[in-house]
Amino acid sequence: MRQASTTLTIESRGKGLTDFTRDVVAWVREQRLEEGLLTLFCRHTSASLLIQENAAPEVRTDLADYFERIAPEGDHYAHDDEGPDDMPAHLRAALTQTHLAIPLFDGRLVLGTWQGIYLFEHRRRPHRRTIAMHLIGE
Amino acid sequence: MRQASTTLTIESRGKGLTDFTRDVVAWVREQRLEEGLLTLFCRHTSASLLIQENAAPEVRTDLADYFERIAPEGDHYAHDDEGPDDMPAHLRAALTQTHLAIPLFDGRLVLGTWQGIYLFEHRRRPHRRTIAMHLIGE
Amino acid sequence: MRQASTTLTIESRGKGLTDFTRDVVAWVREQRLEEGLLTLFCRHTSASLLIQENAAPEVRTDLADYFERIAPEGDHYAHDDEGPDDMPAHLRAALTQTHLAIPLFDGRLVLGTWQGIYLFEHRRRPHRRTIAMHLIGE
Repeated sequence: MRQASTTLTIESRGKGLTDFTRDVVAWVREQRLEEGLLTLFCRHTSASLLIQENAAPEVRTDLADYFERIAPEGDHYAHDDEGPDDMPAHLRAALTQTHLAIPLFDGRLVLGTWQGIYLFEHRRRPHRRTIAMHLIGE
Repeated sequence: MRQASTTLTIESRGKGLTDFTRDVVAWVREQRLEEGLLTLFCRHTSASLLIQENAAPEVRTDLADYFERIAPEGDHYAHDDEGPDDMPAHLRAALTQTHLAIPLFDGRLVLGTWQGIYLFEHRRRPHRRTIAMHLIGE
Repeated sequence: MRQASTTLTIESRGKGLTDFTRDVVAWVREQRLEEGLLTLFCRHTSASLLIQENAAPEVRTDLADYFERIAPEGDHYAHDDEGPDDMPAHLRAALTQTHLAIPLFDGRLVLGTWQGIYLFEHRRRPHRRTIAMHLIGE
């Protein structure tokens, strides 16, 4: 059994979903494991991770719109140190995932055909986000 | 240290929760590990996974009703390729889990007395869903 | 490769977030691993886990208030065996996490500077909650 670790840097362009499936798949392939478990961990509380449909781009728009409605910006939060998008960012992170785990079978992640791995940026401004990746298996 | 992997197929009956704890527990027991980590991964973006209370059936009804309200069907989505239940299915998946991880102590999953493992189907029609299972330990 | 497991008991003081990062970090350090994966699992369906910002206490208040609004107590649930905070507790658990996974690099959890590990109690009364911890690596 062995393990491998790395950190991925993703430059978000402000609010919305960034597909980074390709980067994950490429790194996993380099490790040459046949069977195992991949874990992704987002080192931030105002961005999060999501596995979502990778075909229709409207899904990403609808998703972003939805979280804008369900955890709206506004003046009703006690915490607004970094502006009106600060607290809603934490709420949206709480409603989605800080980490993801994906098994590896036959040398490939078991992602379904329509599944992509996304960084969900919750702040208005672009941010540099770091994702820790850990793989264990053989 | 060793690992084991398999794929479970679950036939959903349309929207709602299907308890498949028994299938998971049976497979884990067959692997005869004492200590380890189980990961379940749902290979779909319109169904998801949930650990929830397994005693009162009303909990499942209330849960389904709640997600019907909080991410309702409607004509306000850009994405509706597969009908009005398409986009809400993605939202409900985003709000719950694509994967679950459960440690194994003394040969048993550490599930609490009232915890069951559920597939949460978000589409109206019945679907055949596949769940990847990975176990590592010794 | 080796693994270690333990159970942590946390006394909640009723609804709200309890930071237990310190307990987790202390236990992980004692295991003296350099690289690996930590998994935390909450053995309850009316409490959950969350990684959130650990600096401003207002974030915890806003978070608690938000979940009070988005999954409110009320008389519109079929399930109320244990009172009006029973079903909302399950909903809030479904919207957050039953488990968390955090990789370990260079002998330390990869938590970001502002990330803390929280137990999110959803019941009004104080409860004794148990969290299973599993660590694998070397």
